[in-house]
This record gives sequence, C-alpha cells and structure tokens, in this order.
Amino acid sequence: MEPRLITLTTDFGHKDPFVGIMKAVILGINPNVGIIDLSHGIPPQDLMAGALVLRHSAPFFHPGTIHVAVVDPGVGSRRRAILIESGSRFFIGPDNGILSLALEGEKPSQIIELSNEIYHLKPTSATFHGRDIFAPVAGYLSLGIPPQDFGSAVEGFERLAWPDLIKGERSIQGEIIYIDGFGNLITNIHERDLKGLPAETLTVSLGTITVHGLARNYTNGAEKDYMALINSMGLLEIALFKRNAHLQSGVQIGVRVTVQEE
Amino acid sequence: MEPRLITLTTDFGHKDPFVGIMKAVILGINPNVGIIDLSHGIPPQDLMAGALVLRHSAPFFHPGTIHVAVVDPGVGSRRRAILIESGSRFFIGPDNGILSLALEGEKPSQIIELSNEIYHLKPTSATFHGRDIFAPVAGYLSLGIPPQDFGSAVEGFERLAWPDLIKGERSIQGEIIYIDGFGNLITNIHERDLKGLPAETLTVSLGTITVHGLARNYTNGAEKDYMALINSMGLLEIALFKRNAHLQSGVQIGVRVTVQEE
Amino acid sequence: MEPRLITLTTDFGHKDPFVGIMKAVILGINPNVGIIDLSHGIPPQDLMAGALVLRHSAPFFHPGTIHVAVVDPGVGSRRRAILIESGSRFFIGPDNGILSLALEGEKPSQIIELSNEIYHLKPTSATFHGRDIFAPVAGYLSLGIPPQDFGSAVEGFERLAWPDLIKGERSIQGEIIYIDGFGNLITNIHERDLKGLPAETLTVSLGTITVHGLARNYTNGAEKDYMALINSMGLLEIALFKRNAHLQSGVQIGVRVTVQEE
Repeated sequence: MEPRLITLTTDFGHKDPFVGIMKAVILGINPNVGIIDLSHGIPPQDLMAGALVLRHSAPFFHPGTIHVAVVDPGVGSRRRAILIESGSRFFIGPDNGILSLALEGEKPSQIIELSNEIYHLKPTSATFHGRDIFAPVAGYLSLGIPPQDFGSAVEGFERLAWPDLIKGERSIQGEIIYIDGFGNLITNIHERDLKGLPAETLTVSLGTITVHGLARNYTNGAEKDYMALINSMGLLEIALFKRNAHLQSGVQIGVRVTVQEE
Repeated sequence: MEPRLITLTTDFGHKDPFVGIMKAVILGINPNVGIIDLSHGIPPQDLMAGALVLRHSAPFFHPGTIHVAVVDPGVGSRRRAILIESGSRFFIGPDNGILSLALEGEKPSQIIELSNEIYHLKPTSATFHGRDIFAPVAGYLSLGIPPQDFGSAVEGFERLAWPDLIKGERSIQGEIIYIDGFGNLITNIHERDLKGLPAETLTVSLGTITVHGLARNYTNGAEKDYMALINSMGLLEIALFKRNAHLQSGVQIGVRVTVQEE
Repeated sequence: MEPRLITLTTDFGHKDPFVGIMKAVILGINPNVGIIDLSHGIPPQDLMAGALVLRHSAPFFHPGTIHVAVVDPGVGSRRRAILIESGSRFFIGPDNGILSLALEGEKPSQIIELSNEIYHLKPTSATFHGRDIFAPVAGYLSLGIPPQDFGSAVEGFERLAWPDLIKGERSIQGEIIYIDGFGNLITNIHERDLKGLPAETLTVSLGTITVHGLARNYTNGAEKDYMALINSMGLLEIALFKRNAHLQSGVQIGVRVTVQEE
C-alpha cells in the first residue's frame, strides 16, 4: 500500500510547541507515517478560515490521506470529537463545522464519534484534544485500525454555512470570505457561477472599488489599479499587482461583492 | 531499533533559512533520521521560553529522541556547547540554561562538552553553532556514535531558576512565566501546588484582575470575563474565551499571581 | 543512491495552505522523497531576498538535491518557467532571477524551459505555478526523469544584479542587502573583499552609525553599542547584542555602507 499521509490544520501558530507535540504523539504510535502541515496560521478560533483551507487542500492529496483539523474553541465541552470517512479520505476533528466545507456535496460512508477512550492519551486534558484525542486517533487509524473501532456511529455532523449567492438575471451578489497572506480578497463566487456572464464586460464592485473585466493573471492586471480574476481555488478574487489589496483597501471579510454585466 | 527522531527548538523565526540549513547538515550525515520542529518562534534570546517549550514537549517523545535547542546569544563566546544524556533521552545545545528545565529533578547519566572538533563543520563559524556544531553532533549521535566520543565529560550544567512560589497557609503566590500564542497567561503554579485548596472556592488575582473558582475548560469559562484553569501543561493559566487575555489585560511575564481561599 | 531531497523557498507565508498543497502534489508523484522548507517567509515578491536565501542555503545540501523557489509576481505571464542543472544540483522556478544568485560563477550543464505540459497539473492555473508546474516537475525529476524531458533547452536565464562594490585604495563601499529575523543588517561585502584591511583598525559606517573594529561574535560586541562582524554567510553584518539593529536604527535595505582603514 502507498504510505499514508496525515495532514494538520490548526490555529496553534508558530510560537508554541503544540504542533510538535501532536507529531510526537502520532509518530510514537506510527513512526512510518508522513505528516504534512497545511496551515497552523489559521486566525485563532476562525472556523471558516480553517474549513476553507481544508476544502481547498484536500483534493490534492491521494486516497487514504487522513486530515486532522483542530480549530476548537469548545474543546473539553459537550461538542463531539468525530472521524468522518468519505471517498476513501478521512477527516478527524471537533464536530464544530471545521471539517464540513471539505465534504460539501459528499455523502460520507461513516461518521464516528470518538468515544472509545482506549485510543485517547491518559490523562486526557480538557484543553488540548489535539494532543490527547485527535493525534492518537490519527496515528492508530494510519496503522489500519478500522474507523468503527474508535467509537459509535452517529448520523450527521455540524456544517458551516457557505454564504448564499444572490443571483439576478444579469448579476450575482456574494461576499469576501477569506483574505490570503498576500492580502488578496477572495469571494464565495465560483468560476462556474459566472457562466453566461462574459469575462470582458463584467463589472465587479465592492465598497468604493469598481473593476471592469477579469484579468487572466496578476501581471495582466498590472496596468490597472485593483483587478479581479479567478484564482487557483476557482474563486473570484480582487487583487493588486505586487501590493496588498487588504491593507490598501481596508476591505474585511463579509463585505458584499457584486458582479454584473456592464 | 525504532527510527530515531531529532527535535529542533530555536529562536530563528520563519524568514531566514537557518532551520533549513541545520536540517541539510543533519540529513547530509543521516538521511534516514526524522526531524520534528518544536518551535522556531521562541522570542529572540528568550532562554526561559525556550526552556519551557522543551520541558513541556520532551515527555511526549519516545526513548532515544535527540532534542536540539538553540537559543544562543553567547554563541562563539566561552559558553560551553554540551550534550546531556538522561533517561535514554539526549539534549544538545549551548550550556546557558536552555536545556535545564526539561531535566529538572533528573540525574543525567552523562554530560559531555562538545570539544571534539572532528564532529564539527569546518570552517566553524563564531555565530552559527546550530549549523556548525549542534546539527552535525545530532546527526552523528543519531547514527549511533556514543556520547562520550563528542568530547570530555563535565560535572554540571547551567540551570535556569524556576521562580519560587511563596506558600502561605491558605495561599500561594507565583508569577506569569509564559504567554502562549493565543494570549493565555501561564503561571509557575502547578496543579499539584494547589492540592488542599478547593477548586470551587479559590480566588486567583493578578494586577486588577480577580477570578473566582477554576473553570474546567474554555467554554465553561465563557460566561465569565477572565477565567482561571489548569492547562494542558498542568499549570494554572488565566484566559479569556475566544479572546487574547494578554492583549486585553496588558499583563506581562513576571506579573505576580496570588491564589487564596475565598 | 542517496534518497533525493527537494527544498522549497517561497513567499507564501504561514497562513495559507499553498506550501502544503505543493507537498501534496510532490508526494503524490514520489511518496519517498524528502522535502525541506528553506523559507516561506520571503517578503512578498522580494526576489533578492529569495535569491539570497537560496544562495546561502544550497551549498549545505548534498549532490542531487532539487531546489524549488517560487517568488513569482509574473506567474501566468510570458516569463518562462525553468529547470537548471549545475554541478549535480537542480534548480526549478520562474525565470525571473530568483535562481540566479545560487548559481553565480557557475556554468550550468543545462537550462530547460518547462514547456512539456505532460508533466504539468491539469487544468493549469494562471496564478499558482508552484502547484501546477514547479511541484510536479520537481516530483518527476526526483523519480529520475531526465531534465531534457521537461522541455526544450534554452541558452541563458535571468540574473539578479549583485550590487557592485566601489573599491578605493583603503576603503570599500557596499550596501545593506538583507535584514534577518533578528534585525541584523547584512551587507554585500564579503569577508574576502576585506582582505588587506586589518580587522582591528577598520571603521564601518552607515548613516549616523560608526563602528570601530570587527567583533568576533555577538557577545564580544556586547560592550559596544552597534558592532560589525563577519556573519555565518561570510558577509559583513552590523548588529546589536540581544537587540534588533533594524528596529533600533531604522536602517533599510539599500543604505550605503563604507568600510575604511582608520
């Protein structure tokens, strides 16, 4: 079999050893598994950012990959800890929506509540389930322990709402849902949502910014001030060439974006 | 034998290639060893933060692990470079206290000054012993070279002082010793220090902040303003639910914390 | 054969999953290759910083290593994507100068434009060639696909200019070219450029700062205010003991530095 991979997505940042400790626990159980960091720079407690990162990354990993996501303000409370198997991929984390965007449109083959404490670290803290529950479960799962051994099957799981688009006859209204490290402003409007609207004659507007037409790449938009383009996630994005559109514009997550024919 | 692991803890940050270069040196010597980053976000020259990170992380790694820590303002001066073996774990770094908190209460089986230059990179710089001394020694040690080959045995090593607690009959006084990436304020008061004081009727005070009782987890303290709890290191911590207690309060490392019966 | 390594140098930062996605693509092609992060904290679009990081790091990796560098403001435009083989090392990235400083003084054995789309991810985005071109090419190259299979040979490649030194009879003038994470101010003046100038009686001046003599290490310069020393890259550096010379002085990249006999 292909060596399995475990990915990690957290809001643990880069000062503390929390991520390294999770890796110690995983490798203590399965010294041969590979571990890939997706992001540990998720803004603290920002479930939507974590869910988007996971959604955008998971398709590039081969079957059998185990994705662990820990953005978990409710750690130690009644929120469940879950393992989801879907399309020969595995997702482990708190049941608070963090896993949900990566699973949109899928029907998971099983959802397990991680209730079998045999696979948890003892003593189990009330504040660091990344170390005490999610890491050891990922480690044992990578060894081939079947999902159902980790607890009892449950029916559903928490889903984050992908903000609705408002579609008019010749317009679409969405919003900024993520701002990347370059300051690019990323919307919830997918390339496929723009079908029928001609790229050359689109107008994209948000706040006081208006952009005419879609650029094909960042250089292509260099003559312009703000540009709009379809980014590598397939989403409509507003950007500045070699500059930070977020800092320049002050536009925040949640700001409405309208696309219409000119 | 289990594949050996090397962990790295430094204040090198994430802009420069210093950590990647250390890994190049290690893997050039032993291409099969695994390397885990504990933290490279230790505040520059902050020995106490580095020592705490190492202390808190080391217990989660299996026997045979080699811990390399480089927070080293005295690099190139007369401060010694050392290798400590204790309880089938190995610690490598400058002899400035960075290794000491992980070894509290232990009697190392050997302490070696890294005086054997055969195992150092040549030319050996005066400013980057992480690359020129600590990385190659860790690489060779992971290949099975015995500790005593790296230099001559010495007696003691530098120790950082864990700040003393002042224990009264019904109170304990400690201080803030670390602030994590979430802004949680972590004290030097361990869970075991609170034995005999009932969790429900404790009062924790620091500066103008007073907290009654211990929360079990962050959610549990959500109704409160500031909360106090025992964190995943077993230490008393003052926190805010989904907010940054450090930024909110302005409390810095060194601020006194008092726990008393109400 | 020794297991090959791939190194990554980017300006992708630590919030977004772009680096993790590149690793997914590489490991999907060659699950057995090792991947080392050199830096993902290159300031956005800063080709010189990326090129310096690569130049300084590459010599520490063993033959056969594949270096991938992605600082790529022109992604998706007419700038070429290239693979350079030189001295049994491989460099992959945009042809914008990012690879050039690591190759100074070398005559590459081949330079290939990455025009063979068989080895690219499909669909190929116009904004993330790290994922769609550079990562898969690195993955296939690590499997042993010969360089010439990735496209057609080309003659030259873009070079960044290493800022010229102005050499007088008893003086040298250079400039600040990089500021590291500790705030040390690094010049383009190499140790060998100072030959003939006696270390004890040098004067280094930049802006309002004047330093007499070279320190051997940071501690050695502790009594002084600013110190000058030869750093681990072999370059003249201006630093402060346990403090951030960049923040303290306000000196930026490009500031002129003069070294002269006293």
